[in-house]
Amino acid sequence: MRALLDAAAAEFGERGFHEASISGITRRAGVALGSFYTYFDSKDAVFRALVSDMSERVREHVAPAIREAPDQIAAERAGLLEFLRFVRGHKEIYRIIDEAEFVDPDSFRRHYTTTAERIAQRLAAAAVRGEVRDGTGEVEAWAIMGMNVFLGLRYGVWGEDEPPEALADAVARLLAQGLRR
Amino acid sequence: MRALLDAAAAEFGERGFHEASISGITRRAGVALGSFYTYFDSKDAVFRALVSDMSERVREHVAPAIREAPDQIAAERAGLLEFLRFVRGHKEIYRIIDEAEFVDPDSFRRHYTTTAERIAQRLAAAAVRGEVRDGTGEVEAWAIMGMNVFLGLRYGVWGEDEPPEALADAVARLLAQGLRR
Repeated sequence: MRALLDAAAAEFGERGFHEASISGITRRAGVALGSFYTYFDSKDAVFRALVSDMSERVREHVAPAIREAPDQIAAERAGLLEFLRFVRGHKEIYRIIDEAEFVDPDSFRRHYTTTAERIAQRLAAAAVRGEVRDGTGEVEAWAIMGMNVFLGLRYGVWGEDEPPEALADAVARLLAQGLRR
Repeated sequence: MRALLDAAAAEFGERGFHEASISGITRRAGVALGSFYTYFDSKDAVFRALVSDMSERVREHVAPAIREAPDQIAAERAGLLEFLRFVRGHKEIYRIIDEAEFVDPDSFRRHYTTTAERIAQRLAAAAVRGEVRDGTGEVEAWAIMGMNVFLGLRYGVWGEDEPPEALADAVARLLAQGLRR
């Protein structure tokens, strides 16, 4: 199952949904075609499972650093830092999640909606602890997610001309004190 | 030309690139098929022209409000406010620009790169005027663009459950003073 999902990530990431094939996935995974159908009944099904898997893997990759941060600004800094590191090692994630908007719109929407809900919950908890302003919630969550997604696209997928630590510092500063001098 | 681009926006926005047809575009525009070929030589060509046109129309829609704002935080607030208003009236823009990632990757990249450069330039000018911190530039530009794109997706395309003014206020506050109490 893990081998098939990794192979699917490579196949869909390189070739796109329409050009990708089930035989391309099984060849990359080094398994017989029959094994594929033990787990999935179609190309659509493995794509849907892959979007859900990537969403979960990003979450698992960033969660420990967020949990261990001493306060909420540090947690958001750590979340972006680990996200950037994940993206540099898995650049195909953008093409796959972005293509879901067309191939499997429910998965696309679920990925972003659940991610934003998770951020909103941790911001709301931080507001209760007094680390961020009262009322910080869904709007700020979508703002932070959008920042992270576009910084990942620019500095993770398209170029690596800034160290992730410098990017995380810049965003932490923005979240701590805004842009004013 | 304008009628063809508007018709192309409706056709690509509703049907997606692969299902869309040149005859669908000319039918919506109310012109003969021959007129299409006066301006474009293929479906790819009209799609490429449409991405560039939408990019330009967003810019033209938001530019006056940004120019008239009294300072840079107010300018970013006005930029988001006008962007949200534009998106609510042209929800197809997301599907078209997002599909460009697959249909015409150069247009996709050019749209975001030129938008970010424009934001970075106005932030750099504001830093010279002392309205934002020295060094504010490309990273903050990608962060602001990402916020705006995701707030537009959530509160412009997927739902209209928050007034644009409240969203613009929340982001202006974040840019002015961060998330801290």
